[in-house]
Amino acid sequence: MFKINDNYLKLPGSYLFSTIAKKVNAFQAENPDKTVIRLGIGDVTQPLAPVIIDALHSAVDEMGKAETFHGYAPDLGYEFLRTAIAKNDYADRGCEIAADEIFVSDGAKCDSGNIQEIFSVDNKIAVCDPVYPVYVDTNVMAGRTGTYDPKTEMWSDVIYMPCTAETNFAPELPKETPDLIYLCFPNNPTGATITKAQLQEWVDYANKVGAVIIYDAAYEAYISEADVPHTIYECEGARTCAIELKSFSKNAGFTGTRLGYTVIPKDLKCGDVMLHSLWARRHGTKYNGAPYIQQRAGEAVYTPEGKEQLAKQVAYYMNNAKVIKEGLQEAGYTVSGGVNAPYIWLKTPSGMTSWEFFDYLLANANVVGTPGSGFGPSGEGYFRLTAFGTYENTLAALDRIKRM
Amino acid sequence: MFKINDNYLKLPGSYLFSTIAKKVNAFQAENPDKTVIRLGIGDVTQPLAPVIIDALHSAVDEMGKAETFHGYAPDLGYEFLRTAIAKNDYADRGCEIAADEIFVSDGAKCDSGNIQEIFSVDNKIAVCDPVYPVYVDTNVMAGRTGTYDPKTEMWSDVIYMPCTAETNFAPELPKETPDLIYLCFPNNPTGATITKAQLQEWVDYANKVGAVIIYDAAYEAYISEADVPHTIYECEGARTCAIELKSFSKNAGFTGTRLGYTVIPKDLKCGDVMLHSLWARRHGTKYNGAPYIQQRAGEAVYTPEGKEQLAKQVAYYMNNAKVIKEGLQEAGYTVSGGVNAPYIWLKTPSGMTSWEFFDYLLANANVVGTPGSGFGPSGEGYFRLTAFGTYENTLAALDRIKRM
Repeated sequence: MFKINDNYLKLPGSYLFSTIAKKVNAFQAENPDKTVIRLGIGDVTQPLAPVIIDALHSAVDEMGKAETFHGYAPDLGYEFLRTAIAKNDYADRGCEIAADEIFVSDGAKCDSGNIQEIFSVDNKIAVCDPVYPVYVDTNVMAGRTGTYDPKTEMWSDVIYMPCTAETNFAPELPKETPDLIYLCFPNNPTGATITKAQLQEWVDYANKVGAVIIYDAAYEAYISEADVPHTIYECEGARTCAIELKSFSKNAGFTGTRLGYTVIPKDLKCGDVMLHSLWARRHGTKYNGAPYIQQRAGEAVYTPEGKEQLAKQVAYYMNNAKVIKEGLQEAGYTVSGGVNAPYIWLKTPSGMTSWEFFDYLLANANVVGTPGSGFGPSGEGYFRLTAFGTYENTLAALDRIKRM
Repeated sequence: MFKINDNYLKLPGSYLFSTIAKKVNAFQAENPDKTVIRLGIGDVTQPLAPVIIDALHSAVDEMGKAETFHGYAPDLGYEFLRTAIAKNDYADRGCEIAADEIFVSDGAKCDSGNIQEIFSVDNKIAVCDPVYPVYVDTNVMAGRTGTYDPKTEMWSDVIYMPCTAETNFAPELPKETPDLIYLCFPNNPTGATITKAQLQEWVDYANKVGAVIIYDAAYEAYISEADVPHTIYECEGARTCAIELKSFSKNAGFTGTRLGYTVIPKDLKCGDVMLHSLWARRHGTKYNGAPYIQQRAGEAVYTPEGKEQLAKQVAYYMNNAKVIKEGLQEAGYTVSGGVNAPYIWLKTPSGMTSWEFFDYLLANANVVGTPGSGFGPSGEGYFRLTAFGTYENTLAALDRIKRM
């Protein structure tokens, strides 16, 4: 008789955003006259930029002709895209990353969930708290996290690094030594960043203790301050300890188009074994390449027109972030984030729990946000709003919140 | 100090098609004047059909306008596509599969590699021999296959079901009881099929011993004979023991476009736990949905125009299959497959090994095929040619083989 992977049963409840969707659907069913504004999930709302649309159309046309049709893509991604990434995201920033150290995929969520597979099940992970749930949940599924304590909402074999107002929303080096360290800056959910000097400390620490940093740079395009690193490879020594995950979802609006990439430098080794080889083997065995038309769209992101059009899109969302941040401050909330990230992180008022504030905000302002506790125990008492709505909805939402 | 997943190191050599690519590249470098014809990898060559191209263009246009832009797709796939699949691939064949039992993905290779994750690492797998390498390799990576014996080329904890001329290329019920049974019909690599009555025996067996059948129906569109089942759900009792994998790669030419789906009936349970829930959790946590534009292209496959245009494409490839099969027979080879599948399986002549014949064919006819031994020990002495080339190339290849 077959058996299931019991680790799945250890996962408490359902995925955060599914729970939110159910609550919102129930509210809408009971209040069909109310217009709900969603500033919860990190999904974009602006259409794809003209340069992306042109690239997609042109690639679709190629797929319709025998001479220019494309079947299976190369395992690691097309050379034209990997070269554009290596030049624009790394060489132009003075970072030494070769095109063949870049693995193109259908998005950073998949990569951030799958990357743990190439590591031993005995490895111990360290995560920021609060944290993007995918890092922890995928390690739970792999059996790497021990037992769950529903009272503390913590796993016995996970090292939590609290990021609260007390730590200025940055993690401190953990007391216990981890094997894998998940870092995400600009941070989801808090919108916080760390400086290049601070990130260098993490790289030095990882090299010293023999840990791998899995660095999620999905929100890099939103950085506005000078001393915030755009990639971990700006730090000396990162090539021997860091994997970087990047997404086209937030800088180019690809949430429904799907494209991302992962960088594994060939210097990152366990003994003689390059992690690059393991990930290449996984890519070749379990994945069949990102679609040709999406890879051409990704290439367009790096053209001069693409850069110009997408900078405007990012500026649009960052103006929303300003509206949210200043609006909340006017209304008396304690707020952080929103300067180098499309996320605004607020302290819930009057000692409300995160979910109490979720219900309160939905019922009274008909605005959907994300409860901080959904991202981990140290997120309790906090709440996330995102800048990815339309300007009009963002204004309206803040107007409602101010009147609340 | 971090450690790697040692199971990856157990994998012998590199992935079959990477090895072939390297050999062909080396031959081309040494013989720049020779034109190599590739009838090896199962990649299609015909451009996407006009109805698919139209659907892609139209969906791209939607992505360029705010009112019709699509962000994150629903976890399981868009309702419009799942409904079309449920109706056309199941209801119209008298099979009871609901739209919400269908999980849309970016392809059957990914699904066939990932599906093992929801099962216990202690489960024992049974595979046909020869077999599509992904089934075995992904179980190796998960640590489910024991140790590898380079002499027999077999894993200690895998149940092999030989499919050779002696068994009419169909597997026999195994002596040892498996937990997971991988079946693929029409078969890759042999091109063989089994009848509905034969498949019913497998379903009855799985229900009796408490095993799950993972049924890969990627080549269903190539079935030409009446008593060959198009889906395992034609068999009574399949809802309690079978998962089905489907691809748009071979029926619609999506190898570089990427779309597929997996069916898990809600009646398939381990105790109280629906496998459907586990896969839904995996999909929600580790995957972010197939792109909107690809899902619209998938929908177009099921329109009357789509069905007509794609039937012609399949007929084109099946004519190639006929050319290969009859050509090889004329040249004196022993051949099977090619009637309900785009694969032709031939016995290597004069006692050559599969790789010897690969080198011989490449050197003397400049034709690339796939060595049968790359698919498992019982594939030794066999060789696979595919019908996915152009008609002109297929004719030319057979002409060269006949003159060899």
